[in-house]
Amino acid sequence: MFYDAIRNDHGFQYDPFKAIVVPRPIGWITSMAADGTVNLAPYSFFNAFSQDPHYVAYGSGTAARGGPKDTLSNLEATKEFVVNLATWDLREQMNLSSTNAAPDVDEFELAGLEREASALVAPPRVKQVAAALECRHYQTVPLPGDDGTVRDHMVIGRVLGIYIDDRFIDDGRVDTAAMKPISRLGYSEYAVVTEAFRMRRPD
Amino acid sequence: MFYDAIRNDHGFQYDPFKAIVVPRPIGWITSMAADGTVNLAPYSFFNAFSQDPHYVAYGSGTAARGGPKDTLSNLEATKEFVVNLATWDLREQMNLSSTNAAPDVDEFELAGLEREASALVAPPRVKQVAAALECRHYQTVPLPGDDGTVRDHMVIGRVLGIYIDDRFIDDGRVDTAAMKPISRLGYSEYAVVTEAFRMRRPD
Repeated sequence: MFYDAIRNDHGFQYDPFKAIVVPRPIGWITSMAADGTVNLAPYSFFNAFSQDPHYVAYGSGTAARGGPKDTLSNLEATKEFVVNLATWDLREQMNLSSTNAAPDVDEFELAGLEREASALVAPPRVKQVAAALECRHYQTVPLPGDDGTVRDHMVIGRVLGIYIDDRFIDDGRVDTAAMKPISRLGYSEYAVVTEAFRMRRPD
Repeated sequence: MFYDAIRNDHGFQYDPFKAIVVPRPIGWITSMAADGTVNLAPYSFFNAFSQDPHYVAYGSGTAARGGPKDTLSNLEATKEFVVNLATWDLREQMNLSSTNAAPDVDEFELAGLEREASALVAPPRVKQVAAALECRHYQTVPLPGDDGTVRDHMVIGRVLGIYIDDRFIDDGRVDTAAMKPISRLGYSEYAVVTEAFRMRRPD
């Protein structure tokens, strides 16, 4: 099948787009409002974009209540954020933190998670995480629709500091499969990485 | 462990960054030079960033021979590209296409792949793929280092058309696990999705 992505004439109940751009890593992002309120929310339109220097980006849609999501409002106010790695052991907590909560709701409390202070930025990381990236907001790129209306944005951040739980480091290398990272597919589907395979570059 | 991402003082042989931003979907990108030469190359700094309108982005580093990679030079010249979904059945071909070839090398031929004409853009897709996104270049965002030098870029594209092999559609839904999408981890590691688990949003 083929469909026009602008007319969105797929004819299905759900647009299959998210089911084919897969598997999407989950940036589970901590941010902080100007008044110190902490927000935690998962974003699967997320990835690294450069390694040296280290940059990451995530896509921010419109909140269910309308207007920008709390994470983006916070980033634009206080400029810093932490990307927590979403893993199998924390999948339920991650899912709980995706609730459409009011800005003053503390998703750490709601999901039964503890905070751990970051080294270089104000927002805390999730204490139990296998890895986290401490970031500074770099740029927000509007993603307009055909009529010029902008509801979605790409938010780019520079990585300042990187935390990795020592349990997952062996002889100077990270054992990614042991972390059991989870990823997002389409609909209500997720996948978990429990083993890796290897391919060497041809040159 | 914690390291400063700007000083990069991790002390390991390889920066562990790519081993913790995981699993990364692979955008296996077809582009076309002004003279019609087709290029095919995999990018794991890739994801969707918005669903309505549909936008994707990938991170482009510097070619091993210096200067921008062929995909980016092509995109800026001819404005169109196709993102092919990388799957288990095509993993060896995908890996072969990652070679640091000269601009005039046809990676389709090199990897033993056939081309299939796209519906809305000039670059072809890989004939054997489970899914492909036909895209138009939207914006290139420079990702500078601390001294202001720019070697890496984020390349954003608008999706115009979406192809999905009917074999993977059942009752209006895509069976993502049946496509066996592969993803990139750190070092020489990859993972494959062969099954999904479900979690419903809390609200």
